[in-house]
Amino acid sequence: MTLAAYLRAHAPRFVAELADLVAFPSVSSVRDAPMEACARWLARALRRAGARDARLVATGGPPVVVGRIGHDRRRPTVLVYGHYDVQPAAPAWRPFSPRLRDGYLIGRGASDAKGQLFAHVVAVEAARAVTGRLPVNVVFLIEGEEEIGSPHLPRTLARLAGYLASDVAVVSDTAMLGIDRPSITYSLRGDLYLDVEARAAAPDLHSGTFGGSVQNVLRALVRALASLHDARGAVAVPGFAAGVAALPARERRFMREVGPSEGELRSEAGGAALAGDRAFSAYERATIRPSIEIAGVAGGYTGPGVHGVIPARASAKLDVRLVPHQDPDRVHRAIFAQLARELPRSIELATHERMRARPVELDRRHPAAGAATRAMRRGFGRTPVFVRSGGSIPVVSTLVETLGIPTVLMGFGLPDDRAHGPLERYSLAMFGRAIATAAAFLGELAR
Amino acid sequence: MTLAAYLRAHAPRFVAELADLVAFPSVSSVRDAPMEACARWLARALRRAGARDARLVATGGPPVVVGRIGHDRRRPTVLVYGHYDVQPAAPAWRPFSPRLRDGYLIGRGASDAKGQLFAHVVAVEAARAVTGRLPVNVVFLIEGEEEIGSPHLPRTLARLAGYLASDVAVVSDTAMLGIDRPSITYSLRGDLYLDVEARAAAPDLHSGTFGGSVQNVLRALVRALASLHDARGAVAVPGFAAGVAALPARERRFMREVGPSEGELRSEAGGAALAGDRAFSAYERATIRPSIEIAGVAGGYTGPGVHGVIPARASAKLDVRLVPHQDPDRVHRAIFAQLARELPRSIELATHERMRARPVELDRRHPAAGAATRAMRRGFGRTPVFVRSGGSIPVVSTLVETLGIPTVLMGFGLPDDRAHGPLERYSLAMFGRAIATAAAFLGELAR
Repeated sequence: MTLAAYLRAHAPRFVAELADLVAFPSVSSVRDAPMEACARWLARALRRAGARDARLVATGGPPVVVGRIGHDRRRPTVLVYGHYDVQPAAPAWRPFSPRLRDGYLIGRGASDAKGQLFAHVVAVEAARAVTGRLPVNVVFLIEGEEEIGSPHLPRTLARLAGYLASDVAVVSDTAMLGIDRPSITYSLRGDLYLDVEARAAAPDLHSGTFGGSVQNVLRALVRALASLHDARGAVAVPGFAAGVAALPARERRFMREVGPSEGELRSEAGGAALAGDRAFSAYERATIRPSIEIAGVAGGYTGPGVHGVIPARASAKLDVRLVPHQDPDRVHRAIFAQLARELPRSIELATHERMRARPVELDRRHPAAGAATRAMRRGFGRTPVFVRSGGSIPVVSTLVETLGIPTVLMGFGLPDDRAHGPLERYSLAMFGRAIATAAAFLGELAR
Repeated sequence: MTLAAYLRAHAPRFVAELADLVAFPSVSSVRDAPMEACARWLARALRRAGARDARLVATGGPPVVVGRIGHDRRRPTVLVYGHYDVQPAAPAWRPFSPRLRDGYLIGRGASDAKGQLFAHVVAVEAARAVTGRLPVNVVFLIEGEEEIGSPHLPRTLARLAGYLASDVAVVSDTAMLGIDRPSITYSLRGDLYLDVEARAAAPDLHSGTFGGSVQNVLRALVRALASLHDARGAVAVPGFAAGVAALPARERRFMREVGPSEGELRSEAGGAALAGDRAFSAYERATIRPSIEIAGVAGGYTGPGVHGVIPARASAKLDVRLVPHQDPDRVHRAIFAQLARELPRSIELATHERMRARPVELDRRHPAAGAATRAMRRGFGRTPVFVRSGGSIPVVSTLVETLGIPTVLMGFGLPDDRAHGPLERYSLAMFGRAIATAAAFLGELAR
């Protein structure tokens, strides 16, 4: 039986299993989410795929799942990284009741990253079933805290360094340009996620009795937040981009040639209007330039109807994306200083770092990138292009810099998968090609 | 038995009854609040106080409670207005589980305005019990939509005009300067409460993938809201204060003499920092100047932890206080235009008016104001001063302008009652003096 025939024959089961995995509400930022149950499900799936030693490793947070297939020292070892935790989601779209529609599996985490991870698990199962054994050794590393910055992972990786020792790592947690435009990601931005709180000593006040005469903390915070960008939408925080190097003209030309155009990026963003610093293209702004997004603001009364109140506290969430040579501590201090400058002294300001990830630049000429290129050609029938991503995957800098493992970002997501948004979905056609590519990758690594 | 003796003897019962009234969660801005149950309770209380015809009147919203005592055409008739609806309140402070502490009754609506209203009910009961009959005819008018702008009241008042025909109206829904500084309010600001919504055609987006490259509706709304005021905190909306007349120097001098100083206003505001247009005192800014307060902002992710999102919609609540000669429609249009000017065209802006109340100026030399002054002197042992309030009571302009009834704002609240805020409370000492003053007022009106 060929691999293709095996995959066709078992496709319905693979989709059903992925739906089971998506049904776990494994939201890492929510207390009491069933993280361990999801991890146990994955360990069972790894054992079925051939990793007889698959097990949960305690981390201090949600457990990590590891498992190994093959111990042949003459063959290369590939580390497959994935994460089973997902972003929060509003109950309204039933994010944890996976359903099939129009060729998509709909559910939180279907694309980011349960579907992409599960493609590797299925590929290993299929490759073993068809050929009897794998052409390389495979180690799985699946964590449950990616969406909150992998706070416990670096220490866990250090403890597991021997077990995880590999020649190459593959991370499937990015999007490609389109299902017929395969791509491999070679850079990621870093991330600094800040909670901002402003509060006054006074209590909430009646907005009739006192309106116009006293400090309104919400008004003051809104004003301070507005000062983070200029009228064009470029970041206006002194010192924010200190040290950021201009990219060589050659690299920017390469990005123009292979990357999405303004229109393509806009359509990937669901038709969103483009905005920001005009000195850079939208693709450049989203990948090689740092950014500050206001991800949330809460203050005062936000329920139905009328409540006349001058709020005494207000809060915001800032998602800051970093590029190489930015110092996250310095960036945090610069943002704090800007907000503090704009806020009246009578208002107490506090910021809390909730997540941190380092940016990474990968070598697109590394042999592992070549193996990924050939695998994609087999899985998608086209040669992939190399693109940058604006997203962040905290583990990658640890894999590359701490463990010294060359890493390939072979993402199997699509730009319109609605990752992090409502009605997140995963294309079943993509799922099939991802499985075929992941299986081919094992063979290409052995060449 | 003297009135004072009767009040002392029955004080515990009055407090217990007030607590029962405060226990109704009669929040007019919440669907399915038990408005009618609260109204029925009040109708029973009015019947006990002597208004044998007390009944509920359907309005299209929560019912109005009316009741009359006395039909003597040789005596003046006084209309006592009150409202049984209250502001929303966070469950955390158990706003509808009234409790006594340190001489206060704590609960939502205890001061605004159930306590102030109930003082009149008790005063009528006591005056009848002690003297056998009242020196004036009394008509009660108690509504359930004051906090949302009394939308159904004007039509109801027109229908009830014959029943409500009176020589004077008394409204107790304002605060005095202090329990030993009785005051009578002679002006109110108007109110225009707007819901603001901004939305993009695109869905929420991943703030890593797209951060820095596309429109963020929350960022745009924050920027537009910040433009409503200048750096000093003065309103910066063109046309906002069009037509507002400067007050005569004589009137401003009177305000300086009798009104709260900067320090007093600050302490009334629980220690809040003063802010706003320095061309006016804090007392002036809160009473004779219009204001725009941001009462709430909601957008993006505001839950615990990390969610990297570029929100596609955001909303705000604006509480706008008006002074005479401002046209509410024009003010609404000016605010909309300012927000629209600041927002990118790709963002859809909508505003919805949730409440409207007209400002009022009352004649502090009217005989009814004289009767109130004498009654307060008896209830508080001091001569009251005449002050302005920044608050709004929608019914007052209807009483004065539509029904032509001279109105006295004999408020029995205190500045630190925390009206509209958490842990709202009503001083039992004030409750006692309010009852005595309300009873004395009936006698003074008959002089």
